[in-house]
Amino acid sequence: MKGRAKIDPIDLRIIELLSKNARMTYKELAEALGTTRQRISRRMEKLERMGVIQKYTVVPNFDLLGYSYVLLGITLKAGVSIDEAIGKLKEVKHVTIIQKALGTHNLVVHVVAPKDMKEIQAIIEEISKAVPGVEHMDVTFITETCKYELF
Amino acid sequence: MKGRAKIDPIDLRIIELLSKNARMTYKELAEALGTTRQRISRRMEKLERMGVIQKYTVVPNFDLLGYSYVLLGITLKAGVSIDEAIGKLKEVKHVTIIQKALGTHNLVVHVVAPKDMKEIQAIIEEISKAVPGVEHMDVTFITETCKYELF
Repeated sequence: MKGRAKIDPIDLRIIELLSKNARMTYKELAEALGTTRQRISRRMEKLERMGVIQKYTVVPNFDLLGYSYVLLGITLKAGVSIDEAIGKLKEVKHVTIIQKALGTHNLVVHVVAPKDMKEIQAIIEEISKAVPGVEHMDVTFITETCKYELF
Repeated sequence: MKGRAKIDPIDLRIIELLSKNARMTYKELAEALGTTRQRISRRMEKLERMGVIQKYTVVPNFDLLGYSYVLLGITLKAGVSIDEAIGKLKEVKHVTIIQKALGTHNLVVHVVAPKDMKEIQAIIEEISKAVPGVEHMDVTFITETCKYELF
């Protein structure tokens, strides 16, 4: 169980800076925030432990890598277990991100697969079969990321 | 103009490792791939220059930070300029990610804003007004990221 996070403005500044460049060193962060490397490192450990920072990652240009990036907005039938659906989705190859949602869709699923429409089609069919109670699926191909600034 | 990327398997391994942990040092990457820090650093610079690596960032738990994360799937009317729409969207506060798309939606817009339904509503209204030719907008609140493994 993760406790309620107590986030102060310095924590938020650290996360903002890392969201712009996750490779900033403790030294660079310390200089930017007028504190010490030790304090930065202790705060980052705390934020990771609390789950406030879930991951440090890259934003790749999937197109240049030869991959398609597809977003599936899934609407489940009433009464269907979302956690069962997530369990099934985790087993499907090329499913990279799974997000619980509320609104038009119950689930947002990101698929990264080699640029081959037949392969994408096969993955979507596999998901339709594997996940029980899919009422509707919106398929959107992401072709370009024009802006990426989390804060 | 970005040239066509020539990505070899070592480049791909570097991107995969960084997608799992963008804070890996040159030394750690070099050890994992059996090469030198200088070669890793040179390859990463090349990948950044080519735009294959667009950014190093964090995956925050927005909920714990007190923010809502909303995905807007926008469908534009036929003949509407997507680039004009993107230009307008870039000016809207709290719009964090803008992606060009093909399929159910023409644009995927990510909004990160303080947890306050009235504020979210105001942002959605602002987008509806600012972006010319919106035919339809699907609103999906992301409540939890259950999996995040880009490759």
